[in-house]
Amino acid sequence: MNDHGLRYFGDYAPGAIYECGSVSIDAARIVSFGKGFDPQTFHVDPVVAAGGPFGGLIASGWHTAALTMRLLVDNYLSAEVRLGGAGVDEIRWPFPVRAGDTLRVRARPDGDSRDGG
Amino acid sequence: MNDHGLRYFGDYAPGAIYECGSVSIDAARIVSFGKGFDPQTFHVDPVVAAGGPFGGLIASGWHTAALTMRLLVDNYLSAEVRLGGAGVDEIRWPFPVRAGDTLRVRARPDGDSRDGG
Repeated sequence: MNDHGLRYFGDYAPGAIYECGSVSIDAARIVSFGKGFDPQTFHVDPVVAAGGPFGGLIASGWHTAALTMRLLVDNYLSAEVRLGGAGVDEIRWPFPVRAGDTLRVRARPDGDSRDGG
Repeated sequence: MNDHGLRYFGDYAPGAIYECGSVSIDAARIVSFGKGFDPQTFHVDPVVAAGGPFGGLIASGWHTAALTMRLLVDNYLSAEVRLGGAGVDEIRWPFPVRAGDTLRVRARPDGDSRDGG
């Protein structure tokens, strides 16, 4: 049971902003995730990445998406409203995420689908 | 260097179907990914999951998305056209993925964005 006070659909106020915490990312985790799921050089090889398009190692966008999910599960979703997500619209990766960066997640329920998953 | 014969933008024929291989998923990997990124009971606890909404353990949708990326990197994307994805539209998880299932990925370049990433 989480202690974020969100439990039933009615607890999620449409339009309200919920701060869902933050997570830091390091090079070892970037490389580990990259080797498993996204072995492009800029995700797995710091040396090659340094000469690549991003000038260094960056996290896979799927890694940042997964970390976002972790923060949502820990700090936003309720066991009572978890029914599995049907899908996701519009993921954007506007900035490279590098070792040492901290990701912060905010959720805002809309009126139609308030499970955030 | 991959050997799938896709290298430059012109190699990706809009509308053509590219088979990107397959990957099998097992319970240990479902649970491991779930513990890291999506610790909802139906992703991490086979016993609780058995009595849950899916009647058993299912993979996180982010796990299947990440495995899809892996198949795209291995069998579809070219080092020459990898510039990092700007985002993704419309991910759908129509069916639960269970231990023992095999995921198969197909890619179809459209005329606007042919990097598949």
